[in-house]
Formats: sequence, structure tokens, C-alpha cells
Amino acid sequence: MPEKTQQMDIGVIGLGVMGKNLALNIVDNGFNVAAYDLDALKVSQFLSQFNAESSARKYPSQVIGCESIQHLLDQLVSPKIVVLSVPAGAPVDGVCHALIEAGIQIEDIVVDTGNSLWTDTVEREKRYKDKFSFFSSAVSGGETGARFGPCLMPSGDANAWERIAPIWHSISAKVDSETGLPIERTSAGEIVENGDSCTTYIGGAGAGHYVKMVHNGIEYADMQLICEAYHILSSGCGMTASEIGKVFEKWNQGKLNSYLVEISADVLQQADPETNRPLVEMILDKAGQKGTGLWTAVSSLQLGCPAPTIAEAVSARAISTQKSLRVSLSAKLAGKETNEVSLESRQQIIDQLENALYCAKIASYAQGFQLMAMAAKEQGWNLDFAEISKIWRSGCIIRASFLQSITQAYQQQANLAHLFLAYSFAEQLSQLQQNWRQATSFAVLNGIPTPCISSALAYYDSFRSETLPANLLQGQRDYFGAHTYERIDKKSGKKFHLEWSSTSREQISI
Amino acid sequence: MPEKTQQMDIGVIGLGVMGKNLALNIVDNGFNVAAYDLDALKVSQFLSQFNAESSARKYPSQVIGCESIQHLLDQLVSPKIVVLSVPAGAPVDGVCHALIEAGIQIEDIVVDTGNSLWTDTVEREKRYKDKFSFFSSAVSGGETGARFGPCLMPSGDANAWERIAPIWHSISAKVDSETGLPIERTSAGEIVENGDSCTTYIGGAGAGHYVKMVHNGIEYADMQLICEAYHILSSGCGMTASEIGKVFEKWNQGKLNSYLVEISADVLQQADPETNRPLVEMILDKAGQKGTGLWTAVSSLQLGCPAPTIAEAVSARAISTQKSLRVSLSAKLAGKETNEVSLESRQQIIDQLENALYCAKIASYAQGFQLMAMAAKEQGWNLDFAEISKIWRSGCIIRASFLQSITQAYQQQANLAHLFLAYSFAEQLSQLQQNWRQATSFAVLNGIPTPCISSALAYYDSFRSETLPANLLQGQRDYFGAHTYERIDKKSGKKFHLEWSSTSREQISI
Repeated sequence: MPEKTQQMDIGVIGLGVMGKNLALNIVDNGFNVAAYDLDALKVSQFLSQFNAESSARKYPSQVIGCESIQHLLDQLVSPKIVVLSVPAGAPVDGVCHALIEAGIQIEDIVVDTGNSLWTDTVEREKRYKDKFSFFSSAVSGGETGARFGPCLMPSGDANAWERIAPIWHSISAKVDSETGLPIERTSAGEIVENGDSCTTYIGGAGAGHYVKMVHNGIEYADMQLICEAYHILSSGCGMTASEIGKVFEKWNQGKLNSYLVEISADVLQQADPETNRPLVEMILDKAGQKGTGLWTAVSSLQLGCPAPTIAEAVSARAISTQKSLRVSLSAKLAGKETNEVSLESRQQIIDQLENALYCAKIASYAQGFQLMAMAAKEQGWNLDFAEISKIWRSGCIIRASFLQSITQAYQQQANLAHLFLAYSFAEQLSQLQQNWRQATSFAVLNGIPTPCISSALAYYDSFRSETLPANLLQGQRDYFGAHTYERIDKKSGKKFHLEWSSTSREQISI
Repeated sequence: MPEKTQQMDIGVIGLGVMGKNLALNIVDNGFNVAAYDLDALKVSQFLSQFNAESSARKYPSQVIGCESIQHLLDQLVSPKIVVLSVPAGAPVDGVCHALIEAGIQIEDIVVDTGNSLWTDTVEREKRYKDKFSFFSSAVSGGETGARFGPCLMPSGDANAWERIAPIWHSISAKVDSETGLPIERTSAGEIVENGDSCTTYIGGAGAGHYVKMVHNGIEYADMQLICEAYHILSSGCGMTASEIGKVFEKWNQGKLNSYLVEISADVLQQADPETNRPLVEMILDKAGQKGTGLWTAVSSLQLGCPAPTIAEAVSARAISTQKSLRVSLSAKLAGKETNEVSLESRQQIIDQLENALYCAKIASYAQGFQLMAMAAKEQGWNLDFAEISKIWRSGCIIRASFLQSITQAYQQQANLAHLFLAYSFAEQLSQLQQNWRQATSFAVLNGIPTPCISSALAYYDSFRSETLPANLLQGQRDYFGAHTYERIDKKSGKKFHLEWSSTSREQISI
């Protein structure tokens, strides 16, 4: 009969890569953890790692590996806090029902840290209201983040947050309050107690998962943009993976400084342990995905908020998976054969591309921030974008130096309608747009697909167009469907229709 | 007390632009119609138009304007056929419930011709199974199409289709069986009895509305592509609306021959009745939409089928609506000031653009056809793409000469995996791609947003890339999230993970 100790601070259910690392991170920071996984092997692996790191740890935390959800619940001090790290979807509800059967109480809190769809989170908060407090906290930072400091995006009942906050502030990533730079932590022995923590209460139910979803949408665009730069430098300039890795390394010292550029440099310079060729050339070019990017694109379409670069990134992954079709088509469809590029023009292209990438990145983030603002308006969330960009500065996958500028832009103007309106970004984009055009044109003329770089530029050019050709589009719609149009010289909202099919072609005011 | 005549062939509920014109079209073709609208004024307008056209009509059809749904039902021969032309969504169910209350029988058929979301249609067929036969038929062609020959996309119970078919074949648009060219009909007096009719049974419940939805998605892309060409010629080449209209008129004589190019030429040359300036310049550049384009984009994302150009078209409409933001940003964001373009280069740009537009159009249609194929696979529909492209040759908004080539491509190979694989398209694209690149580059360098032309080119270049940079993307995903990768030198499906965070960086086979 398993014991009832009731002295553990927090329960963790689900000990996959993320759950195990979150649990170890919590332990490092001095909390006692009861841990459970359906797979007993994962429980014992967790315990082994806990033991192996014991001497390094600063605090004498305790852990208990549990045999069941009931066992886990029995170990926790009341009111209890249970963290879920299980696959999004049905498994979350499966565990919730098991917790109800095991006697979870109304004052207890269940924190879903998976990649749940935000609308599911909203539903669950309602569904479990009478049984326990369903809270959610999106996690970004991958396995290393979870282990040594993730970016945490909690949302739900504000009272629940008060009880979770001390743990969340301890385990999250930290940035230096002065410089905004991440404070690195890489081992169980290190604890970061100073600095700004990369967690903040995001808002009511679903807000945290929505913000995380958009984070991932931006991540999709960011990754695809980097891949397009790699494609231009390899196919367009004939550079090797390792040479490109070194270019990325250099870029990472400048305005493109970010986790994704940093790891891309590393990936590109990694040799394959089997063949000793560049590993990247041995990796199959079919991109996987888990859905958050497409959820972001779908949400943007449904809200009527333009996020074309994020949608292009999702689509690029879809095309990559159609490898056999691509192989067939590559033999049938002509493109520009790439010319030899001199070393001098190569350097010029590299420099243009650095600026193009930076501009396209700003456009992608701008799309994400506008999308969050429109969703917040619809959902009644009071999102604080200065805080959100602040917590994204460390721990999460899209952390980047330029988030500091985004933070400043929103600190100066909390209700900024669009990131492009911020003086610093408007100025940088205006200075660099010429290079953005040149790099895009190079790719277009040389047959290198740049769906995201091109889409971001079209987005920029569309937003700086006082007049768009949608006037012709409204003319077409009125012509074939009598959908009416407004006039530039009449009151907004006043609608007109031309009788296109009659010979007199009179205009009717509707 | 309204009479029970029980001699009318068909009932039409909803006499807006589409419903009224469909009803008059049915009458022209010799069927007796009982018509009803909630708004009695619309009923009397319908009756007036019916009377005004009496002397022209070939057949002595009868109509009855009804005072209620009950009244309408009482006029119909049994088993009854009731056509709905009401706004998509709740109104459809509202009318269905009213029909049930009015005593509709299980052998009666209700045909929804609105722009319903296809999943709603699937639901409705189930929901009303025990009360009557819920059938659907999407309609394309706008008000003129509805009046003188629409493209009709029916789906649902095959027995119901047998009863509806004679009416549907009569009222639909026709094309010459030999040439594939539309047979025009422009008045109540004309009846087209020969030629191929632009209707065919599409498939089980929802299939017709799905195909119509994709039709509209393609239409969004097509319209936006034309708008981008207009933008390039106006902002990039300094041409007037009327000059551009003439270019479009010329294009309409060649491979771009299509309804949308034709009406765009007309719209551009239309003078404003109020100011006598080009009307298009008086129309406000904020595009409206009714949802079918975004549904198509959402479906493509959910199915993992790339349709980026359709998504860009939806996004372009969304950006157009943010007019005040665009006005603010136009003063802050720099672009290339457009140079004077000589008449000689202007002609060169016009010629390049004609080819660019044609290629981008092929890419958009290819996206739509691949999407329908993926949806059919998921839904178990047996879609006949030769037939679908055939019925799109007349009546519908995206009718275009080159649909004849699509028809031929699918006639030659019914299970063609992608339109680009068809010899005729592969050859044309290969010949014209250089001009596509030049036109896109011109726009990019000159600050003219071309989201759809650029996106379609990136789509083309992606599909002709045997290798895409998704290898780096998989490396990134494995790096931060242990998402694993496949190798080009190992069996498909075999997964690997590199231990990026360990110093040894061993590769693990999963």
C-alpha cells in the first residue's frame, strides 16, 4: 500500500522530455515533487537523473516516483498543485477525469503545460469549474528551456496564479534587468535568483495558450526565413553548409542575434557522425509540424487579421512533405540555372540578405502582435504587449535581441496599433528596405523559392500603400455580384451599385 | 384563404438578387414557379419582372407569388421540390424548420443554393433525413449567371439528383460541345437547348459546396492577381485606368481570356457618372468578403495541402480594410520611388506581366485542384476533375479559356497528382517562367506589393525543387525540441535524434 506523505509541494504528471525537465527544474529550485507517468520506465529514468544530480543541487529537495494518479495525489500538501505535461487533446481530459476519480478537491489547481489549443483551454476551465481549478500555462523553450529556464505563459483564474507564481518565477528563464540579456543557466547546480523572470500572468482562460500559439506561429515564420536565407546562400551563391554556418554565426553577433540563428549556425556546422559530411545534407528535407503554426494561420484568417508570412511558413512545410511530387516536377519544370557568383557579389548578397532577413523578421513579429491584439479585443483579454515581449527575451525559442526594441516600443505606447508605427522600426525598415528588395529579387530571378521573405515584403509594401488596388476588386465584385462599393468622396459606410448589365449604367445609392 | 393549386413544378424561397434571377431563369425554361420571400416587396418585384418579360418568353410558364411558406408548399405538385436562396447559416435552418411545420414530406426535396459552409451541408443532410431530403447545389455566376445560365454544383442523395437534373440541365449555362466556348444567353427570350450544360452531379453530401468553396478560393486569387497587374501598370508604369483597361481587353483575346479579365477591362474603362473621372479611382480601396475564400484557406491549412496564393489573396483583402493604418504608415515607411518608364520598356513590362499573370493563374488553379483532391480523399468523394473543370467553362466567375486545357489534362489522366505534371502546363510554365520572374522582380524593386504573383512563383519554385531547405528546419526542430529527423540514406520512417546538448553529440536511432 503506497504511503500518504502529504508533504510534496507539487505533482507532475507526464514525464516525457518536457515534463521530466520541468520536474527537475522545479526540484533544482527547492520544491518537493511527486512525479508520475503511465510508463513506469519514465518514472524510474526521472528518479535516476534526480539521484545523479543530487550532489550538484543547491537545495535538498525531495522527490517521490508515484505508481498511480491516486498515489501522486496522496503525496501532495493541500491545497494541491498538479502540473500536467501530456500530449494536447484527449490525454489532458483523460488525466483530468482520473484526478476527479482520485478525489481532487475544488480548491486544488491543475496546470496544463502542454501545447493545447487555446479554445480547448477555454472549454476546460468551464468544464472542470465545479471539480477543481483548471489553470493553464504554456511553456516555450524546448527541452533545454524546460530544464534550465523556460518562458512561461500562464492564464486562467487570478487567485490560482497567486499560488503558482512563486514556483513559476523560480523556474522560469531570467534576463538581466538592466541589459535585457538572458542570464544563462546550464546545470542543476546553478540557480538564478536575480534578474527579471520570463513569466507573467497573461490573462483570463485561454490567453496564455493563445499567446503561446502566436509565439509558435512567429517561430514557424522565423525558422522558414532562416531556411530561405540558407537556400539562397547554398543554391544561389554555391556556399557550403559550413561556410553558411559561419555567416550565421557572424549574423548572430549583430542585429539578427537570436536563439534560432544561433542554433542554425550550429546545425549547419555539425558533421554527420556516420559519414562525416555536413549533417544537414544527410537530413531529409520533409518538415514535420505539430499544429500550432496552422492554428495561428487559421485564427488569423478567422479574425480577418493579415498574417500571410506565418501562413506561407505553414504552407512551405506542407510542400516540403510532398517530396516525391517535387522530385517528379523538378525534371519537368524549368527555372533559371544559377550563374557563378563572384566572391565580391557573394559578400554583397550576404550583406543584403542579412538586412532582408531582419526586415522580414520584423514583419513576421508585427503580424503576430497585431493578431494577439485583435484576438484580445475579441476575447476581452487585457494583454500587456510590453510584458509579453519582455518574457519572450529569454527561455523561449523566438528569443532575440530585437525583442528589447519591441518591449520599448510598447512601453512607450501601450496601445500601439502596429509595430511598423514605432519610430525605431519605421526608421530601420525604411533604411533597409532597399536591401530587402535586392535580396528578394536575386532569389526570384535565380529560381530560389522565398515564400516568406517575399510575402513579408509584400506585407510591408501593402501596409505602406495609401492606395491599394482593392478599388478594382470592389468594382469586380459589384460587377458580377452586386456587392456594392463605397466611394472616396462620400461618407464612410454609404454604399453604391452601378447597373453594369443595363446599357444606361446608372449608379444607385443603396 | 390562399388557394391550394398543387400545380407548380418548383418552389423558390428567398427572392434576393440570386433567388429572383434563378426563379426567372427556371420560368424562362418552361417550369411553373411558386415564389416566396419574407419581404413581400421582393415578391411583388419578382411578379412585376415576370409580367414585364411575358411577351418575350418562349414558354407560357406560370408563377404564383406566395404569402407564406405554407402557401408556397400548398402550390407544389408532389413530390415537391423547394429551392432555397437565403443567406448561409441560421436562415437555412430557419426555413427548413418552417417547411417541417408546414408539412413537408419525406419524399420532398429541399435544395440549398446559398453559399453554405460545406460542413454545415453535411450536418444538415443528416439532421433532416427523417423529415425530407436535404440536397444542396452551389451556384456560381453571380446575378447574371443566375438569370441566364449559372454553373451549378449539385451534391447529396443521388435519387434526389435524378429528379432535379432536368431542371438543372435546362437552367444552367451551356458551352459548345465542340469548341468548349460559352454559348451566350442574355435575355428572357433566348433559350439554349443544345451544348454541354454546366452542371454535373458532384458527389455525396457537401461535395458540391466544397467544390464551390474552392472555386471561390481560386476566384479570390484570380481577382487579386488581376488587381496586382493593375497596380504594377498604374503605379509602376504610370498608365491610366483606361489605358490599362485596353491592355486587359487585349489580354482577353489571348491566353488570359476569361470572364474576370473581361469585366476588369470593362470596370477600368467605366467613367464615373458623377465626376466623369475613371469610376475605379472613385471606388474606395477596401475589399469586402463573404467568407468562402477564408474557408478555402482554412481547409487547405487543416488538410495540410498548400494553397498559399489563395491565403495571400484573403490576407490582401484584410490589409485593404485597414485603410487608416495604411494611410498613417504610408507617411512613415520608405519604398522605392518609381522611375519614369519609357514607352518601350512599358510594352516589355506589359508583355512580361501577361505571361506572369498566366503562370500565376495556373498555379492558383493547381492549388485549388490539389486541395479538392485531398479533401475528396478524406471525405470519400469520387470527384471527376475533368467534369468539374468542364462545368466551370461557362456560367461561373472563374470561367476561362484555359479550363479547356485543364479538362483535357484530366481527361488524359483522371488521377493526375498535380496540374503542373500535365505536359501542356509543364511546357507553358517552363517557357514563360522567365517573364514571371522579371515581372515579379520589377514589382519587388519598385515597391509594388504583389503578394499573390510572388506567392505563386514561390509555390512554383518550391515544387520544382528536388531539395528544399526543410533539412535545416528539421535540424532546428531536433535541436530545440528533440523532434527527430529522417536521413536521406536510411529507410523512410526511420527516425534519428542528435544529442545536441551533450558534448559528444551522438546520434540516436529512435
